[in-house]
Amino acid sequence: MTQKQRTAILGASGYTGAELIGFLLSHPQIEIVALSADKQAGKAFTELYPHFSAYDLPVMQKIDAIDFAAVDVVFCCLPHATTQAVVKTLPESCVIIDLSADFRLRDADTYAQWYGHAHQALPQQAKAVYGLTEHNRAAVKKTNLIANPGCYPTSVLLPLLPLLKAGVIDVSAGIIADAKSGVSGAGRSLKENLLYCEVNESFSAYGVGHHRHMPEMMQEMELAASGVSKHFRFTPHLVPMNRGMLSTIYVTLNKDTSLERAREILEKYYMNEPFVQMLPVGVTPTTAHVRGTNQCFMNIFQDRIAHGMIIVSVIDNVVKGASGQALQNFNARFGYAETLGLHHRGGVV
Amino acid sequence: MTQKQRTAILGASGYTGAELIGFLLSHPQIEIVALSADKQAGKAFTELYPHFSAYDLPVMQKIDAIDFAAVDVVFCCLPHATTQAVVKTLPESCVIIDLSADFRLRDADTYAQWYGHAHQALPQQAKAVYGLTEHNRAAVKKTNLIANPGCYPTSVLLPLLPLLKAGVIDVSAGIIADAKSGVSGAGRSLKENLLYCEVNESFSAYGVGHHRHMPEMMQEMELAASGVSKHFRFTPHLVPMNRGMLSTIYVTLNKDTSLERAREILEKYYMNEPFVQMLPVGVTPTTAHVRGTNQCFMNIFQDRIAHGMIIVSVIDNVVKGASGQALQNFNARFGYAETLGLHHRGGVV
Amino acid sequence: MTQKQRTAILGASGYTGAELIGFLLSHPQIEIVALSADKQAGKAFTELYPHFSAYDLPVMQKIDAIDFAAVDVVFCCLPHATTQAVVKTLPESCVIIDLSADFRLRDADTYAQWYGHAHQALPQQAKAVYGLTEHNRAAVKKTNLIANPGCYPTSVLLPLLPLLKAGVIDVSAGIIADAKSGVSGAGRSLKENLLYCEVNESFSAYGVGHHRHMPEMMQEMELAASGVSKHFRFTPHLVPMNRGMLSTIYVTLNKDTSLERAREILEKYYMNEPFVQMLPVGVTPTTAHVRGTNQCFMNIFQDRIAHGMIIVSVIDNVVKGASGQALQNFNARFGYAETLGLHHRGGVV
Amino acid sequence: MTQKQRTAILGASGYTGAELIGFLLSHPQIEIVALSADKQAGKAFTELYPHFSAYDLPVMQKIDAIDFAAVDVVFCCLPHATTQAVVKTLPESCVIIDLSADFRLRDADTYAQWYGHAHQALPQQAKAVYGLTEHNRAAVKKTNLIANPGCYPTSVLLPLLPLLKAGVIDVSAGIIADAKSGVSGAGRSLKENLLYCEVNESFSAYGVGHHRHMPEMMQEMELAASGVSKHFRFTPHLVPMNRGMLSTIYVTLNKDTSLERAREILEKYYMNEPFVQMLPVGVTPTTAHVRGTNQCFMNIFQDRIAHGMIIVSVIDNVVKGASGQALQNFNARFGYAETLGLHHRGGVV
Repeated sequence: MTQKQRTAILGASGYTGAELIGFLLSHPQIEIVALSADKQAGKAFTELYPHFSAYDLPVMQKIDAIDFAAVDVVFCCLPHATTQAVVKTLPESCVIIDLSADFRLRDADTYAQWYGHAHQALPQQAKAVYGLTEHNRAAVKKTNLIANPGCYPTSVLLPLLPLLKAGVIDVSAGIIADAKSGVSGAGRSLKENLLYCEVNESFSAYGVGHHRHMPEMMQEMELAASGVSKHFRFTPHLVPMNRGMLSTIYVTLNKDTSLERAREILEKYYMNEPFVQMLPVGVTPTTAHVRGTNQCFMNIFQDRIAHGMIIVSVIDNVVKGASGQALQNFNARFGYAETLGLHHRGGVV
Repeated sequence: MTQKQRTAILGASGYTGAELIGFLLSHPQIEIVALSADKQAGKAFTELYPHFSAYDLPVMQKIDAIDFAAVDVVFCCLPHATTQAVVKTLPESCVIIDLSADFRLRDADTYAQWYGHAHQALPQQAKAVYGLTEHNRAAVKKTNLIANPGCYPTSVLLPLLPLLKAGVIDVSAGIIADAKSGVSGAGRSLKENLLYCEVNESFSAYGVGHHRHMPEMMQEMELAASGVSKHFRFTPHLVPMNRGMLSTIYVTLNKDTSLERAREILEKYYMNEPFVQMLPVGVTPTTAHVRGTNQCFMNIFQDRIAHGMIIVSVIDNVVKGASGQALQNFNARFGYAETLGLHHRGGVV
Repeated sequence: MTQKQRTAILGASGYTGAELIGFLLSHPQIEIVALSADKQAGKAFTELYPHFSAYDLPVMQKIDAIDFAAVDVVFCCLPHATTQAVVKTLPESCVIIDLSADFRLRDADTYAQWYGHAHQALPQQAKAVYGLTEHNRAAVKKTNLIANPGCYPTSVLLPLLPLLKAGVIDVSAGIIADAKSGVSGAGRSLKENLLYCEVNESFSAYGVGHHRHMPEMMQEMELAASGVSKHFRFTPHLVPMNRGMLSTIYVTLNKDTSLERAREILEKYYMNEPFVQMLPVGVTPTTAHVRGTNQCFMNIFQDRIAHGMIIVSVIDNVVKGASGQALQNFNARFGYAETLGLHHRGGVV
Repeated sequence: MTQKQRTAILGASGYTGAELIGFLLSHPQIEIVALSADKQAGKAFTELYPHFSAYDLPVMQKIDAIDFAAVDVVFCCLPHATTQAVVKTLPESCVIIDLSADFRLRDADTYAQWYGHAHQALPQQAKAVYGLTEHNRAAVKKTNLIANPGCYPTSVLLPLLPLLKAGVIDVSAGIIADAKSGVSGAGRSLKENLLYCEVNESFSAYGVGHHRHMPEMMQEMELAASGVSKHFRFTPHLVPMNRGMLSTIYVTLNKDTSLERAREILEKYYMNEPFVQMLPVGVTPTTAHVRGTNQCFMNIFQDRIAHGMIIVSVIDNVVKGASGQALQNFNARFGYAETLGLHHRGGVV
């Protein structure tokens, strides 16, 4: 067994941070050396998450109190837009895996347009790799800044990309992704609409027509099939459950292809991937199937209109959609088995 | 105050039956004279629903034990496919409001195709009126057999029909209704997939590509815009909550129209309707808004692709999607104010 | 029909305020003339609660902008400890029904001890009546300041008081009330422990050994059986559901009495009460039975130890435990039927 | 690494079976060689639990089709009362870990009294060891039939036993355990009261005064403090959540002791136990803290009455209350580290 990677988690107090820590604690190649949580600096991590009472963990500290010279890997679980200021101060020797949206967009103008301000760390952004592991593995292995994908993009891109690359979808007929997420995707922030009594026994759409995960999906889809983004529609919804994400994706197949061909493409693409399962014909993926795991389950269905196909994909938004995929990227980056530490289930939230 | 309508509820033991009874108990023009529940005949209704312990209600009996000569109105809350055999035995003097799917389809072949057997009460079927009150009020007033719409069709048709009638939608670009329902829509039947631990903390699609509410929607949409049904796609989903239904509907507007025009059409159509509210610009309907009520809330949103429009509509599947709309139809049929007894909230489930 | 009571609701933005408004809207003797919500003054009530989109309601205003000379009745839904400052400024002509804890304790020292500050409106406090309607009806009818009971006390006192008054309980053997509440009891305040992901799929105790509803229960129990309070134990718990409250109460019967006698006492005491139901032998009350209603359901059970008796009582914490009981007190105070407006179900939360 | 234990799971189709399989799959010393599920024999396990789509597992078969000569360890996840008939047919060479209640009671009469029929495998029963690992470790190591404790007993006994053994509780003043469980404890059986809509948004007590876990608790408590059982009271409740269990236990301390002393006893008793954590002063255990884990968290609190103490303990009913403890017992029996395979989280339900 090689030297362990000395690892810091920035933004440990949120759900993705805590979930990540849960995974890292049973990863044989990781040593947690620092946790940051600016507002909670000085507190024990178990004050925030008594869940970890059986473990020894570093006291939380402010970011600038961490000695990054003694850190090999930094997982950034900081809020969107605040991450870039931190990342540009980190030493080049650190491998950074960023779970925020800050480094996902390659185009600075697109970033500015969707986020309302100019990007503050353009040199780093230029080197960042979009860490959808199954599709960008080679690049992930060579970068020191991995932009971990958003949860919605992960659930939508995993089934769509192989089909787009294979050219079997009639893009001009439109692609609609209607996505539904558990509440943990919104983090642990104090907002009235996240109160238990507001969410429970209710179902709602949000960000209708303009959700921020859109440009990220369009960017990656364009790489697979130029021109697709202007036919792509996406609406996110909030499901009264802690975790889980399901995307229902409506596409039209080209006239010269078939559902069977589409199935073949997806089965072949993911045949050797440990974290993507194409389910048997007729089995509908359900978020409970992947609860707490780093798995993406998917299936395709014949729609009743001619050439219509419906894709259903599920992930756990906190794991494959955030902390689990981050660890998968870590494993890929350092050459460990990608499954290392990921047989475990998350469950902090 | 006129003579009360002597009312029987068949299939009182299910959720729609019990919810209906809750409404009827505070309706000033209704006297409940009989409850049927074949398997539970002889039991007090409160053995099944202690909720009603403060009320006096008839003991449940078998259907053939009811003297329908002394009944003015029959609400049928029986399972799909079994209702028709009962309805054809009821005296013509009874006004029947049927909450099952048995009399919703006008075309006998379509019925046979989707339900897998020939219809057994064709004479009655021929006279039935599809009771989407806001769109069929005139016919409802004149019939003795009202086929109460399904929950999914109610949530999809209420926003779509006025737009289709006005011809502002580019039908050939496709209409996709992605609908999400609380669990009570599946009734009180003993199925493994309805167990608490299966549904809770999970989200799933079902009947992908072939749900039985489809022909009913297509039938009514065709009346509004011929040819539309072959471009219509629909997927239902199960939300871990007892009640509530939200439909996200993706349409493309004709090039010569606008979102504002669509808003105008809907606002005007429902201006005087007590149970349909077009929400102010920017307010997203949420199922909690209509929980327990007979309301349908809707709104429309500009999508980011050219001419794309997203409609969001919500209802309570047990009320506007079933028992409440049944009572509304009763009120309409007998010339009472449609809101009579419907200021109340349901909540048995 | 007499003149309607001109009614103001202070603190309309919280759950109890909104729920109350839902009931008042269908009460034939009430005209809502003013709504206050200091931080939201100037906004339409439907901005906070789109639920009410079908209704016309006054714009929310600051309390000091309300002309109380034109108000007959004030429902106070303000936070604990802030209510007293408001109440002492209201004209004596107003009938005040206060849903906070501010006027429930008769003893100023006890108040100071449990709330950590001296009471600021002692003259008003001296006149306040504890509005547990079924037990204080006569006094409620004569006062202008009704202190509406807390939810826990309502669920505990309704079954216990008749038994204590009848002297059948062996008080020295201890009385333990283990109570469980839905989350709405905590209101709409922004606290981390009330976030959906914190509450959902979790169960917790809180305020163990020192919850503020204790002195209120002890005060009323002492009136029924002197000395009882030093043997009384109480622990509240948080259930992952919006509404509903169940109390499991462990008592020991005196040796010369029996479970049957206890049943007789409770049945007789509540025989003519529309809002309290003693369930039949063997039927266990469940919060769903009373969801949205002003009912209290209760039952008693033989425990396996000698003379042990277990009481189970359920209420809806937002209705019988708050807004519904407030309206019941209003009805009692003005001589209307106590059930007026209370056949309806609440359901805003 | 030694030879793996060839392991059969009987009753693989229920929640405890499936959860156990989840743990066993990542246990380095276990090889799953057979799964039984009588009604589902011949099906792939993933037909019932698509969750396991990424794994290879044996096809399910009938029990009598399994060659137990090639099996080292049998985990029995069969229903109560049916297990004994199976166990008596198994070869003596098999180590059996039984998750049912069949072998937990030492006294055959007590079994007959609570279960309504004579025990059918008395020779086996005589050799069975009650597998509350932390208290029976030595005996567990030496037996071939481990009776895995029930979930309620686990959550109640772990905090109570050390205190009873130390003699600090005034037993005659009564011990009341008010316990609350997630729904998975009831298994995957088709019962109306387990339907989603019945459980969700509701809270209920059940088995009031006579739950079957009682004799098991009394048996073990008597071993710690003779005479205690006639003062012990217990009521179970159903919480609308999948998993988790919290017990609130009301005791009275002897006059010559203190809360601090009680804390000392518990801290010392569990100091080196990996799966029991006494939380710091003032921290209230919550079921979310232990979700999916094999941990028991506990704490004690001063009640407001003299000498009153409240104990709060939490476990995950499916893990520490069933499958996790079963694996812990397996580890103990074979001399592996007790934590082996139990860093993982369960989450099938």
